[in-house]
Amino acid sequence: MNTQRSGGRRARAAKRANAAERAFDAAWRQWKNPYAPIEQFSADEIEAIHNASLKVLRDTGIKVLNDEARAYYVQVGMREGKDHVIHFDPDVLMGLMAHAPSEVTLHSHNPARTVTIGGRQVGITTSAGSPNCSDLQGGRRPGTLLDYDNFCKVAQAFDVIHFIGPVVEPQDIAMGLRHLHMTRSIAARTEKIPFVYFRGREAIADSYEILRLAHGLNHEDFVNTPVSYSVANSNSPLQLDELMCRGIIDAAHGGQMMILTPFTLAGAMAPVTIPGALVMQNAEALAGLCLSQIVRPGAPVCYGSFTSNVDMRTGAPAFGTPEYVKAAFASGQLARRYNLPLRSSAPTASNAPDAQAAYESQMSLWGALMGGANLILHGAGWLEGGLTISAEKFIIDVEVLQMFAELFKPLEVTEATLGLEAIADVGHGGHFFGTQHTLDRFETAFYSPLLSDWSNYENYRDRGAVDATQRANRIFFEKVDAHQPPLMDPARIDAIDAFIAKRTEEGGANIER
Amino acid sequence: MNTQRSGGRRARAAKRANAAERAFDAAWRQWKNPYAPIEQFSADEIEAIHNASLKVLRDTGIKVLNDEARAYYVQVGMREGKDHVIHFDPDVLMGLMAHAPSEVTLHSHNPARTVTIGGRQVGITTSAGSPNCSDLQGGRRPGTLLDYDNFCKVAQAFDVIHFIGPVVEPQDIAMGLRHLHMTRSIAARTEKIPFVYFRGREAIADSYEILRLAHGLNHEDFVNTPVSYSVANSNSPLQLDELMCRGIIDAAHGGQMMILTPFTLAGAMAPVTIPGALVMQNAEALAGLCLSQIVRPGAPVCYGSFTSNVDMRTGAPAFGTPEYVKAAFASGQLARRYNLPLRSSAPTASNAPDAQAAYESQMSLWGALMGGANLILHGAGWLEGGLTISAEKFIIDVEVLQMFAELFKPLEVTEATLGLEAIADVGHGGHFFGTQHTLDRFETAFYSPLLSDWSNYENYRDRGAVDATQRANRIFFEKVDAHQPPLMDPARIDAIDAFIAKRTEEGGANIER
Repeated sequence: MNTQRSGGRRARAAKRANAAERAFDAAWRQWKNPYAPIEQFSADEIEAIHNASLKVLRDTGIKVLNDEARAYYVQVGMREGKDHVIHFDPDVLMGLMAHAPSEVTLHSHNPARTVTIGGRQVGITTSAGSPNCSDLQGGRRPGTLLDYDNFCKVAQAFDVIHFIGPVVEPQDIAMGLRHLHMTRSIAARTEKIPFVYFRGREAIADSYEILRLAHGLNHEDFVNTPVSYSVANSNSPLQLDELMCRGIIDAAHGGQMMILTPFTLAGAMAPVTIPGALVMQNAEALAGLCLSQIVRPGAPVCYGSFTSNVDMRTGAPAFGTPEYVKAAFASGQLARRYNLPLRSSAPTASNAPDAQAAYESQMSLWGALMGGANLILHGAGWLEGGLTISAEKFIIDVEVLQMFAELFKPLEVTEATLGLEAIADVGHGGHFFGTQHTLDRFETAFYSPLLSDWSNYENYRDRGAVDATQRANRIFFEKVDAHQPPLMDPARIDAIDAFIAKRTEEGGANIER
Repeated sequence: MNTQRSGGRRARAAKRANAAERAFDAAWRQWKNPYAPIEQFSADEIEAIHNASLKVLRDTGIKVLNDEARAYYVQVGMREGKDHVIHFDPDVLMGLMAHAPSEVTLHSHNPARTVTIGGRQVGITTSAGSPNCSDLQGGRRPGTLLDYDNFCKVAQAFDVIHFIGPVVEPQDIAMGLRHLHMTRSIAARTEKIPFVYFRGREAIADSYEILRLAHGLNHEDFVNTPVSYSVANSNSPLQLDELMCRGIIDAAHGGQMMILTPFTLAGAMAPVTIPGALVMQNAEALAGLCLSQIVRPGAPVCYGSFTSNVDMRTGAPAFGTPEYVKAAFASGQLARRYNLPLRSSAPTASNAPDAQAAYESQMSLWGALMGGANLILHGAGWLEGGLTISAEKFIIDVEVLQMFAELFKPLEVTEATLGLEAIADVGHGGHFFGTQHTLDRFETAFYSPLLSDWSNYENYRDRGAVDATQRANRIFFEKVDAHQPPLMDPARIDAIDAFIAKRTEEGGANIER
């Protein structure tokens, strides 16, 4: 009798815990930002920045180093000046930008992990593009495919990660083959939206082919189904190089999302004033984004913001600074001015997964999210201005991301949540631990941390005073060990492997053009 | 000739640096938050919380354990029920609250350090009330007067600290004498606005007398000049104890600022729902604040918010959680509902000055500041839910506070800051390091960090890979060593010392009533 009751309680508790987990998952998988964005500038000031960037595009123009791209621009009425400079007609430009979609849905090969960005909707990526990786055991070292795989496995473990970047360069794989193994690893080990590098026509085509096979799509459906994202960085100031133009054109043809992110570090590649750096960011973003819309009106694109400042004593880039936050707030206003999704980031210049890394990344993240960003690149793992991805920093960031996913869940104000009955019942003194109002809700009432240790000092000390960075290290490798590859039809994996074998035999991709 | 030119350059550079420092100081000494506050609830939802708290005050009431306080309430028409419970008439209550000022100016004995809170204006305090202190050298230990003095010295070194809390309990001083030495130390070593503990009538009177002497004011001017602040914590749920009532009454008579902060931890002393916890916070805050306004209409007060949640598995308090941030946003809306300044905090539950301490405190701080808080208690140094003040955490927090002070400086959008001329001059490729536009601005363009290390990895490693916590330790003790006491008429110090000698001879204060 007792056993049965206790079993019933356990079953009910398990059911509640399950329901709680499902409720958490749903909100963590598709974030909706419920808060009105913070604005840095008045509407007039944003209009002044907009107009100044149109003036830059018209008068100074953008140097475009790819012949096909220049031909596209000229074809719609832009003027080619000397030295490959394209001068933009503001009306034609704005007419083209009107074709760009305000939201993009990125499809996972597991439909439950498909994610939309734009409007109030937000997606998160891992850190991307680091040559090095680090963890407490192995220190800092050039990345390998094993490291790459480990970060993929850990990314797969967390619902608050929606996109995956090229987490670390697998430097043990030849450049011409690297994209093949990176794309396969993401497709086979995760359900996250993959990144495709703009490393030339062949590498892009190879990556798209692997993703097409992973999704089991025919060629026609593939080019109408965004399943990946890429970043084109303009070569600030005011240049678009051969590979970036190539990528913008190929991504538009491929129907895959392209983010145009100017690398506008105020004081170095951009004016020392934040409004000036934003003028340049905006000019370069519009120039690249409109190329997509010429190639294929309605191509999925995203406005990229990465404006920060440098240390004026050394020229070193700085992140998570007050200037970074202001630029992030303003970039939200600019992206909304064009009705585009906004990409921002959560970077830090710290060399270690320490308190500086935590506070700088969080300054960046608050600036980005409260500015209204829809896609956070470098959301987990980034250190050293991107030169390293850190296992410990990855877990520290996931904890903060999970807190934001919870923060973004709205609170209901109802008779039940106002709790007048419970307040009257408990009265003066006393506590709420045992009330029915608490018992009905306690399992899902609050965020339960992944990394934070809320124990008292004596317990913390007696367990060895293990700090957050050390705890993060443990969690990272527990997640590596616990990894289970997501379900995928083995025939798809076989097709991918056959394709990689063929491309390897052919010598891989020419990544120069 | 060369020497002269170089001297001229140096002089000009020094002048510019000086001007830059002055410009930084001014904004750091009086913060103005330029951003519209983030709102958690609709106006209707805030009204529902307001109305629910009035219902709680009327029907369940507040247990008031001090006879004089109950007499004050009854005198204005509140009803005393059984067991010392006061039932509040909503109209009388709101009529009283209308007397409370929306801004309070707190005077320093150095007029340049006087600070106003309320509206857009924000002040920052150190951490307060910890029994323990810690640093990397000495570990965690009970506080002494030497530790207390060190934190006062370091607080004095930073313009972004405006108020000083009882940083750590000097446990080597007898309780009845402690307030004398604490108040003297703040007055003699800092120009920050001091905290006065509500530890009974005599201790409050002693503290006020020391501050009166420090300011060189006569008794009449003193009670019309806010020079200090105190916190009354209601004994949640729904109680005001003897000492807190005593303090509220004495602070109102003394013309000194009183913050009423309910200790509403959702799931423990308050309902498990955040709206329910806010109903209780609001009821308790209004009950205590209106007592001030009965004693002395127009007495300087501040609405205190500290609502957070507990870990439901252990009952341990948690801080910097998503729930904490939501409560902070909502508390801003409630304080503005009553046109009152808002006190919030930047706490963490972390046991070490590590990444967790950094990210939890920053979650709290962003929630508080973007919710529209006017006074941030525990702004620097807090660890372990307040059980310890940490030297390293103090410096980590100051770095983040300085970043916020910079963030709050507005950006001008003008022809000069849009930088079109510089952009046209630099053209495509190239950089902005050497342009006149950069040279004219680079010294004051960006925040220059106190603690953050932006060097590259090789330099960081070659200097010993000193992480943020270790660097913070160095900075803390450099500031202790560099301390210079602020200017004060020696006659005032003599008067304070004579007063302390007399009170010591009399046996100090009775801190029980």
